[in-house]
Amino acid sequence: MDLNTIQTPALLLDLNKFTANCEFMKDKCSRLGVQLRPHLKTGKSINFAKAQMTSASGPATVSTLAEAEYFFAHGVNDLIYAVGISLGKFDRVLALRSAGCDVKVILDNVETAVMFSQYCDQKKVPCPVLIEIDCDGHRSGVKPDSDDLIEIARAIKGEAYFAGILTHAGDSYKCVGEQACQKAQENERDSLVRCADRLKKAGFECRIISAGSTPTAVFAKSWEGVTEVRCGVYCLFDLVMAGLGVCTKEQIALSLLVEVIGHQKEKGWVITDGGWMSMSRDRGTSAQAVDQGYGVVCDISGKIYDDLIVGSANQEHGIIVRRDGSLIDPKDFPVGTRLRILPNHACAMAAQHPQYFVVKDGKIDAIWNRIYGWQPKELSL
Amino acid sequence: MDLNTIQTPALLLDLNKFTANCEFMKDKCSRLGVQLRPHLKTGKSINFAKAQMTSASGPATVSTLAEAEYFFAHGVNDLIYAVGISLGKFDRVLALRSAGCDVKVILDNVETAVMFSQYCDQKKVPCPVLIEIDCDGHRSGVKPDSDDLIEIARAIKGEAYFAGILTHAGDSYKCVGEQACQKAQENERDSLVRCADRLKKAGFECRIISAGSTPTAVFAKSWEGVTEVRCGVYCLFDLVMAGLGVCTKEQIALSLLVEVIGHQKEKGWVITDGGWMSMSRDRGTSAQAVDQGYGVVCDISGKIYDDLIVGSANQEHGIIVRRDGSLIDPKDFPVGTRLRILPNHACAMAAQHPQYFVVKDGKIDAIWNRIYGWQPKELSL
Repeated sequence: MDLNTIQTPALLLDLNKFTANCEFMKDKCSRLGVQLRPHLKTGKSINFAKAQMTSASGPATVSTLAEAEYFFAHGVNDLIYAVGISLGKFDRVLALRSAGCDVKVILDNVETAVMFSQYCDQKKVPCPVLIEIDCDGHRSGVKPDSDDLIEIARAIKGEAYFAGILTHAGDSYKCVGEQACQKAQENERDSLVRCADRLKKAGFECRIISAGSTPTAVFAKSWEGVTEVRCGVYCLFDLVMAGLGVCTKEQIALSLLVEVIGHQKEKGWVITDGGWMSMSRDRGTSAQAVDQGYGVVCDISGKIYDDLIVGSANQEHGIIVRRDGSLIDPKDFPVGTRLRILPNHACAMAAQHPQYFVVKDGKIDAIWNRIYGWQPKELSL
Repeated sequence: MDLNTIQTPALLLDLNKFTANCEFMKDKCSRLGVQLRPHLKTGKSINFAKAQMTSASGPATVSTLAEAEYFFAHGVNDLIYAVGISLGKFDRVLALRSAGCDVKVILDNVETAVMFSQYCDQKKVPCPVLIEIDCDGHRSGVKPDSDDLIEIARAIKGEAYFAGILTHAGDSYKCVGEQACQKAQENERDSLVRCADRLKKAGFECRIISAGSTPTAVFAKSWEGVTEVRCGVYCLFDLVMAGLGVCTKEQIALSLLVEVIGHQKEKGWVITDGGWMSMSRDRGTSAQAVDQGYGVVCDISGKIYDDLIVGSANQEHGIIVRRDGSLIDPKDFPVGTRLRILPNHACAMAAQHPQYFVVKDGKIDAIWNRIYGWQPKELSL
């Protein structure tokens, strides 16, 4: 089984690049004296987790309880479920805790804090809770200066106990270049430090002060006052990150192997079997300075064709065009030619596939399975 | 297990609507005297197939060879793999045929016709081949008046044998309203009839003359000269189809069940646990007259809130906003509230989930599993 014979479309992981990306972030956090708590939502694979984490049991971050259950079953014990907890998931979280998994939850409002505290008391299961901080208006969380912050901390009580604060500088995905990312990182750090101070004055000690996003983690100069950094997509990188200047295109460890199935000569199109189902519908570079379409085209070895992108896509068809609109000569890419497509968004492309083909020095070295979905493993009516 | 207790996000299939949609298309094709060959790429589930097909063994259409293998294992025998065949898939197709599956392939160029014919001869496995026609410039296929058409037919020989023609009026997805869709359908039909005539004069009889797309199939007045109709998303419908006037929002049979996890009061946002990972990144309505964001919001029973859409999304967060930008009062949707989101594109939303919760009269009636991916079931290095 090699790159010329595996069925296409196929998701390829460049092991050397992936390992280098993982090591870079471990080193970076270590140098800044902060714990890395990698986000496992990008890979959704225990093989990824083992390369990303600083120990086999964690710490790590997950985006679903299905991930938490899967990684716990594979020995990862120290987890944060980094999406606001709500009523329908209380039982499932406490089941994990009762089974010995040290999963921590986050929330950003008094109502949930009250409900969750009562639930933990009723079930007699202790659970650490972090308050989510909104450092940049991106989505969830309480404002660092809001009165709600202390109120929420007070509402977490009984078996549920206050353990710290967490933020995600989601708006750093709009920052271009080192300076802008550093500014976002300073704001992320400052917001957390300010909250920790306010909480301390109110009598709440933050054991965990958790920040994290790939653009801020890559360029951080200091995490003083922060205990840990969560980031995920750095292990693969992608065209969105390259567009922000957070990585180069050459550092991107994920690609889609496709095969040319035909052409439209007059239009200069090359048509492949890699459609949006295998690339994802993510068009994250469309708002950036350089729109990469559905992805940048490489040859089978991964060498980038700087002038070629996937210009459009149907479910199982990708249409490769030249950026400048000039025609591609079909003879340059005859039917059967294999190419690789770099992803706009690695988390989104990977999610379309049950497995990674791990490529080392041009050869397929392993197959790594990944999980998907939100439901418990055993599901019946 | 009911809609208040299943884990969210969860993919819901409204059984009554789904069944009505399937029956509508069976009736429509039957009345027009044309065979329905439903596309199974939307559902990717044998339960879907059984409701869509006119017999347990087909005919049906698939978009991947993984689908072909899965449906064949479940007794569906008469299949068209409706993506241009290319070198890397020859072996897999012939393995299916040798196992007794009557899978037909399509192609649109002489090079592939020559290579595939040689391959079938070499393996001594007969295989019917359709020529793909490009009726509207959408993606693959030969132009109806192109000289290539007859040349390709001539190149299909030996064990590979010419069986007919196929087209997909993909540009009908840009047609709005009955008249525009009918015009697209007439063009689709005319293109095929013209090609079949040209081929007949050259000595090639078309046993199969295959058309199909949901907008053209819904509004067709005549399929004279066409032997079969392939369409897929009609079984679910979605907001893109509603935007074209092909269905009403009330006919949409698929939705995502989500739970409110928080609010941003000052912004008037309601935040849910349904992000783009569970909705897909599809923004197919963004180019339509009414942009539905990431989807239209309904209550837990499916009643539509016409003023609410999912305005933006992160991986596991959906942000519900009011269309007119006015603020949503958090009291109207307290944390824990369950809502449904109608999909922009049903094929894309469904693809993010391993299973459907089948809902009949407000109760969960069954769980239907679905497949994903492109690789053979048994995969090892």
